[in-house]
Amino acid sequence: MTTLPTFTDVQAAYERIKDHVTTTPIVSSSLLNAWLGHTVLFKAECLQRTGSFKLRGATNFIHHHVAQHGIPKQIVANSSGNHAQAVSYAGNVLGISVDIYSTESISAVKAAATQDYGANLLLYPTRPEADDAVRRAAKEAGTVWIPPFNHPDIIAGQGTAVLEAITQTHQHEVNAVFTPCGGGGLTSGSLLATRALLPNALVIGVEPENANDASISLQQGSIYTLPNAPDTLADGAATPSVGELTFPFLQELDGFYEVNETQIAYWTQWLHHLLKLHIEPTCCMTMAGVIAWLSEQTTPQTVIVVLSGGNISTQSMQSIYAQDYLSQPPML
Amino acid sequence: MTTLPTFTDVQAAYERIKDHVTTTPIVSSSLLNAWLGHTVLFKAECLQRTGSFKLRGATNFIHHHVAQHGIPKQIVANSSGNHAQAVSYAGNVLGISVDIYSTESISAVKAAATQDYGANLLLYPTRPEADDAVRRAAKEAGTVWIPPFNHPDIIAGQGTAVLEAITQTHQHEVNAVFTPCGGGGLTSGSLLATRALLPNALVIGVEPENANDASISLQQGSIYTLPNAPDTLADGAATPSVGELTFPFLQELDGFYEVNETQIAYWTQWLHHLLKLHIEPTCCMTMAGVIAWLSEQTTPQTVIVVLSGGNISTQSMQSIYAQDYLSQPPML
Repeated sequence: MTTLPTFTDVQAAYERIKDHVTTTPIVSSSLLNAWLGHTVLFKAECLQRTGSFKLRGATNFIHHHVAQHGIPKQIVANSSGNHAQAVSYAGNVLGISVDIYSTESISAVKAAATQDYGANLLLYPTRPEADDAVRRAAKEAGTVWIPPFNHPDIIAGQGTAVLEAITQTHQHEVNAVFTPCGGGGLTSGSLLATRALLPNALVIGVEPENANDASISLQQGSIYTLPNAPDTLADGAATPSVGELTFPFLQELDGFYEVNETQIAYWTQWLHHLLKLHIEPTCCMTMAGVIAWLSEQTTPQTVIVVLSGGNISTQSMQSIYAQDYLSQPPML
Repeated sequence: MTTLPTFTDVQAAYERIKDHVTTTPIVSSSLLNAWLGHTVLFKAECLQRTGSFKLRGATNFIHHHVAQHGIPKQIVANSSGNHAQAVSYAGNVLGISVDIYSTESISAVKAAATQDYGANLLLYPTRPEADDAVRRAAKEAGTVWIPPFNHPDIIAGQGTAVLEAITQTHQHEVNAVFTPCGGGGLTSGSLLATRALLPNALVIGVEPENANDASISLQQGSIYTLPNAPDTLADGAATPSVGELTFPFLQELDGFYEVNETQIAYWTQWLHHLLKLHIEPTCCMTMAGVIAWLSEQTTPQTVIVVLSGGNISTQSMQSIYAQDYLSQPPML
């Protein structure tokens, strides 16, 4: 069995990747903070190269592999989202051939981005067929398969976002760190970084009600897999199940919230408006969890929220803006 | 007659305001630059406090007034857009009472932002009624009326965005500076800064076809006023006419482009996607002018584009995303 990563792995990951990823800024809205009576510090990973924190895990995985085993002949991954773009970019800058296995339903803009970063895109009619194909390809000599979340190097790499955020916000006394939860890689890495650097701070996960596999898993004490592909604006958190390596970390969280589609659209509109950043619904949803938690606090709190990415299809933008939520300011 | 501002005024404005406004970053997209074969450097004034460059002019006007005449009893302005928010904020931080005269049709989100920055909002059924009311109010003793563009201190203040951008991009050889043109304050100030600091660079303005008063004015050699309120996504450039103080600067421009509503929506989607910033159509439209100009160049060019703001109503977002333009990447 693979050993769970530790904070030492997150520190090693940061040393390994820091010159290859962007140090993204911490942003905040004085208006939002005034309305809430609390301080929300956003880690803007939407401004990361390739548009998401996924580059951290992919870069850590590849550089660690190269240091141990040398340059592989071929990298493969199965994804139609941010992980595909991250692996494509991270492999390409090292001159390694990258094949991404995806479905024919991949959006044109995500397909173009994945290819523009240098990968070959192999499309299959269904997700199981793409998954079978990558599994076969990974057996070829000299081929390395980079999983999206269920690997110690991915978890450690994703943890560097919060490690960096805690360093950047050292002048604040942070009470809690909130992350969106899909497969659990970001949440697990964030837990490692926070427990080590801010032992008094809570770590809280948020996922969509419509893809609440992690929430059910936590309630039943074992990994639950969604029977069908979930329908949610938070496509980055639509993973059918968390991983064997991420679930033990999720079980250590101090809180976990499920949020509905209206809350996701509401907060996406408001964070676009307040922060002037093009931020994915997958991470904007986290604010609904922040609000639920803040409404139970009796003193002013300071929280870090990880804005995990900024890749949004036009179809998602149309859904997000179908209603006007900017006429209803966020108040506690 | 009021004297036209000079570059010395832009420099003085920068000394006056630099500690009161955000030094906004220069951003770029490696993907866009690869597609175009040119280098586009964006000055991200959408990340300016209050969400637009308008804070520079308003802050310069108020601080210059205070230095000359002391703190006024009352500040007034007529606007339902970015100028209203800028004046509200700039007055409020100095503890000066601000009244903004606007129409009842002001969007809820802009009304809320203007009030949240501290101003009193006075609403009238029509624009002429609001304009009459501010004119009457401005006659009261101790009251100062801050115009949106037709004043030397406003022009000089807006010019600090390009002054700052040129300093930030000194490692590049910049061939041209592009700005959106509404009343002409930003364009005039940008011309002053560029002529002084980059005498070999061109300065080019861009406005919507549907609000092409500046273009007609330049063609006929005198200021033309649009007969009706224009219908354009680029609401910040929907000014009915340029000013007596800005028109002489516009006549010195090296180029001027009119762009249509499809181009405006196209580039707004693409700049959101490529830069991960929430940017107004008013400045995204500038890219259509950049493309028209670049298509006539025979060698790789480097241009600065001023992203003037990031305040967008939900209704505008719905119009911008009504079609999917992300499936058609921008190529020359």
